Order: sequence, then C-alpha cells, then structure tokens
Amino acid sequence: MKENKNVAIYEPVEIGKDPILEDFVILGKRPVKSRNKRMKLIIGDFPVIRSGTIIYAGNVIGDNFQTGDNARIRENNRIGNNVSVGSGSIIERDCEIMDNVKIHSGCFIPEYTIIKENAWIGPGVIMTNVLHPPCPAFKKHAPLLGKKCCHGPIIEKNAVVGAGAVILPGIVIGENSLVGAGSIVTKDVPSDRLVAGNPARVSKKIEEVECPLGFYKRGEVYSWRKK
Amino acid sequence: MKENKNVAIYEPVEIGKDPILEDFVILGKRPVKSRNKRMKLIIGDFPVIRSGTIIYAGNVIGDNFQTGDNARIRENNRIGNNVSVGSGSIIERDCEIMDNVKIHSGCFIPEYTIIKENAWIGPGVIMTNVLHPPCPAFKKHAPLLGKKCCHGPIIEKNAVVGAGAVILPGIVIGENSLVGAGSIVTKDVPSDRLVAGNPARVSKKIEEVECPLGFYKRGEVYSWRKK
Amino acid sequence: MKENKNVAIYEPVEIGKDPILEDFVILGKRPVKSRNKRMKLIIGDFPVIRSGTIIYAGNVIGDNFQTGDNARIRENNRIGNNVSVGSGSIIERDCEIMDNVKIHSGCFIPEYTIIKENAWIGPGVIMTNVLHPPCPAFKKHAPLLGKKCCHGPIIEKNAVVGAGAVILPGIVIGENSLVGAGSIVTKDVPSDRLVAGNPARVSKKIEEVECPLGFYKRGEVYSWRKK
Repeated sequence: MKENKNVAIYEPVEIGKDPILEDFVILGKRPVKSRNKRMKLIIGDFPVIRSGTIIYAGNVIGDNFQTGDNARIRENNRIGNNVSVGSGSIIERDCEIMDNVKIHSGCFIPEYTIIKENAWIGPGVIMTNVLHPPCPAFKKHAPLLGKKCCHGPIIEKNAVVGAGAVILPGIVIGENSLVGAGSIVTKDVPSDRLVAGNPARVSKKIEEVECPLGFYKRGEVYSWRKK
Repeated sequence: MKENKNVAIYEPVEIGKDPILEDFVILGKRPVKSRNKRMKLIIGDFPVIRSGTIIYAGNVIGDNFQTGDNARIRENNRIGNNVSVGSGSIIERDCEIMDNVKIHSGCFIPEYTIIKENAWIGPGVIMTNVLHPPCPAFKKHAPLLGKKCCHGPIIEKNAVVGAGAVILPGIVIGENSLVGAGSIVTKDVPSDRLVAGNPARVSKKIEEVECPLGFYKRGEVYSWRKK
Repeated sequence: MKENKNVAIYEPVEIGKDPILEDFVILGKRPVKSRNKRMKLIIGDFPVIRSGTIIYAGNVIGDNFQTGDNARIRENNRIGNNVSVGSGSIIERDCEIMDNVKIHSGCFIPEYTIIKENAWIGPGVIMTNVLHPPCPAFKKHAPLLGKKCCHGPIIEKNAVVGAGAVILPGIVIGENSLVGAGSIVTKDVPSDRLVAGNPARVSKKIEEVECPLGFYKRGEVYSWRKK
C-alpha cells in the first residue's frame, strides 16, 4: 500500500491490491449516529484515492476505483468496477452506481440515486430526491415512498448529463440520452434524446447530433457508447 | 471533547458541552490580514463538526450546530441554535443565520446575507451580494450602501430555496415561499408563493402546491412549516 | 516561510518571498500517472495559500497569488501575477490565467481554458471543454483539435462572468462583457455586451448598464475596468 502523510483509517476497512492513498484521506469513517461499530468499508483492487477524499464505512466498491481530490462518499453505497468520482463531488448514502460510471467534479448525488452502467455525469451536476423539501413525510415514510416522490433520479445506461444540470427528484434520464449543459430537468427524458433548457425540453434525437469537426458522421456521435 | 486526528485549534476558542470534532478540522483560524489577535470563536453545546470543516475566529454560534465534511465558515457570522451547514458549503463573513436554518451541501452564502428562522437552503444554491461585480464602490462605500445594491439576499422565515438556485444581490425571498430548483431569482419573491424559471416567475400560491403521493392534501404541503 | 500544521510539500518546489502556507496544504503533488519526477512547482513572491489548498507540480505561478480554503489546482497551468483562486474552486490542467484575474469560490475551470487580464469569474461558475462528452476523439486527437470542439472557453480582458453561469466549450466571452448570473452561454459573446438567460442572449450594451444607487452615471459602471 502506498500511503501518504496523515491518512486516517477506521477499521474494519478491506482494500484490494495496490491501493494509492494520498494525503489527508479518511477511510471507514462511521456516521456520527451509527450504532453499528462493525460497518465495514470494502474497496476492490487498484484504487486511487486522491488527497482529502473521505469514504465512510458501509460502502462496497469495485475494482479500479478512482476519486479526485476532496471527494466525499457517505455510507452504504454500492459502487461497481471502473467508477470514478471527481474532485469535490459528494455522494450521499444508499446510492447504486454501476460499472464504468464517471462522475465529474463538484457534483451532488443524493440518497437513493441510481446511476447505471457507462453513464457520464458532467461537472457541477446537482441531483435531488425530495419534491417538497424538507418534507416531514420523507423522514416518516421514506422506506415506503415510491421513486416519484422522495427517491433520487435514475440515470439509465450510457446517458450523459451535461455540466451544471439540475435533475429533479425521481426523474428518469433514458438510455443513451444527453442532457445539455445547464438544463433543469423536471420531466422524465425518453431514451435516445437530447434535451436542453430551463425547464428542459426535447431538442432532437440523439442520432441527429453532429460533430462540428467531422470526427463523426451525423448519427454517429454517440453511437460508440451503445457498443 | 471527542477530538480526532490532526485537529488544529487556534485559541481563543470557547466550545460548549460534548463537542465532536472530526479529523482535519480547523477552529478559530484568523483571517490573514486581521490585526485582532483576540478574535474569539464561540460555539454552543453539542456541536458536531465533521471532517475537514474550517471555522474562522469571530463567529458566535448557538447550540446543536452541525457541519458536513469540508464546510467552511469565515469570520464574524452570527449563527443561531439548531443550524446545520452541509458538506462543502461556504459561508462568507458578516452573515446572520437564525435558529433552525438548514443549509445543504455545496452552497455559497456571501457576505451580509440574512437567513431567518426555519429557512431551508437546498444543495448547490448560490447567493450573491454585488450587482455589478467587482464594483469598486463596494469596497469604498460598503458600510453605507443599502441592501438593494451590495448586500446579500434576505431569506425570510420558513422559506425554501430549491437545489441549484441562484439568488441575485439584495433579493428578498418572502416568508413561506418556495424557490424551485434551478431558478435564477432576479426579483423579490412575495410571501407564500412558488417561483421557478430563468428568470424566476411566480408560478402559483404556496397553498396550491400538491403532494403527488397524497401524504398532504392540497394546501397542506407546507402548512406544517408555519406552526 | 510561515508554515502551519501538517503541510505536505513534494520537491522540487520553488517559492518566492514571504509565503503563507496554512494547515493541510499540499504543494507539488505529482499526477498519479506522471513519469516526470522532476516536474517543478514555481510560485512567486508573497503567496497566501489557505488551508487545504492543493497545488500540483508543473505549475508556474506569479507574484501575490492567493487561494481560498480547499482550492485545487492541477498540473501545467500558467498563472500570472495578482491572481486569486477562491475557496473550493478547481483549476484543471494546461490553462492560461493572466494577470489580475480573480476566480471566486466553487468554480470549475477545465483543461485548456484561457482567462485573460483583469477578468472576474463569479462564485459557482462552471466552464466546459468538450461539446459531446465523453467524446473519444478528444482523447485521441486532443492536441490537433481546434478551439471550437474540445478546448476550454476564452474569457477576454476585463470580462465579468456572473455567479452560477455555465459556459459551453470553446466559447469566447468578449472584452469588457458581462455574463449575467445563472446564464447558460452557448454562443460567443461580442465585446462590450451584457448577456443573460438560458440560453444566454444579448440584453444590452455594457455602456447601458446603470448603477441603481447612482455611484456611477449611466455608461460608467464598468468604464473603470478599461483603464
């Protein structure tokens, strides 16, 4: 283990092969109110945990995990292989983040969010999980409530969420769809669409997106993501 | 005092009963240019100061104060009881934050902002305090200027500001009002209204907001906040 | 050198006169994949590096540099004199930031961004550098691609970007122009204009901007910046 200055590790922490832990990293921190002293942090092989990253106990994380500096991941998330969480991004608890997901810098991902394989989340994206915050029904009935009220968004496979977008609670971003930078997404986005605006509206089909420099033909810009 | 690894405390710091100070916390830091070596940091009973939080000298903070990881609070703020400041949020100096205010993660609260009792500020909210930055009149005349020019917003009692909203300088968000996620608020918001959009416009009265799951009847969604 | 608790310095680091290095600062960190063990960090005279700031190796930074708490600056940037990078802001690699630029708190500045003399970037501004992220052509052809495809924005001299604005890839913000808070800028902005909205549209000429308190006459609000 390559471990830099001043790393704070709270056992039980289980890490795979060849981890890199940079300065001021905190691993396995328990939530203040947790009574479960055996909450374990599990991280797979070859993780790169950059400076100042905080990963709470109770997470199960796959191989090749990467964080940017000052990333923060609360408890009880399930995180797949080849996932990266960028600098300063916050993942709250009880999320499911599947293989090959990239979350860029400065994002906020609330409780109960689901981000499926190969999705790409741009810098400064903010997701939400309560329609009428701070709804007291959420605290009282949280386990019973449907995804449309108090659960996080669902980002389907291969979807791309542009920089600075805000996603409302329970919204589904369809497979292969693209949310334009700065969009405020208040309605579900179907598959294979480009949406943009405040509120976000369908602008075109994803196969109509063109590369201005001609690296891809019309209809091919995102076709490589479906393979 | 439960104090973790590597906490940096710059006296004089006065903390009440049973504080929890997590790793890499900094308390009582003086501003670089400050000549006042006796600026004191006062925090009430039962604070939970999470990892990496920085609280400057000159703040007076009530009981049951909580911060998320990497919160940062500059000098000379007055902060009431039962206030929380979420992960990565920044409170600049000379703000007034009253009892029971919750500021979520990744917010920016500039100098001279006033947030009144029971207000709830969502993740990624950005407030501003200068209409024409970087106005040199601000530096020259700051103590003389009215709230409409160079002061922070005023968030009235029970107001809720949705995720990712941007609030322009000196804007007043009325009592019990709700600012929709992603709104850009360029005009004062009256009491008891829902506003949304860029620029934000009044969308409906707060008593017309409905709970899609029926936990509250029409008109009751936010009525519990007025009690 | 005034150096606080727990500073991590990775040589070679070259700093000028009278630096202030606060707690938990990291200087000269090498990127994980870098093979160049002699990448040097150069900082001029009188820097103030606030708590938790991370500055990678390979940067060349001028005099009077200031960072807010938890600022993070990746490798190979050229940064002029009298520049400040605010709390929590992220500068990726290979940017050029010229003299007297002020970048406020919580900003994201991606690779290949150019910010020219005297520009002012408000809190929470997010810039981008790839039109169709995560475009594989970017990785393959990055050095060959023109500014309109995969390069960062160009912020011209004296321009002001308001709080929470999102700037699309390769966009040019003209000299002396003002981007209103919360704008989503999808087209180049000419010189001497005010733009606002989602998408941002030209609202007026900069000389038509008025100070509501009369500190400046009509047309004079930003005239002091041109001197």
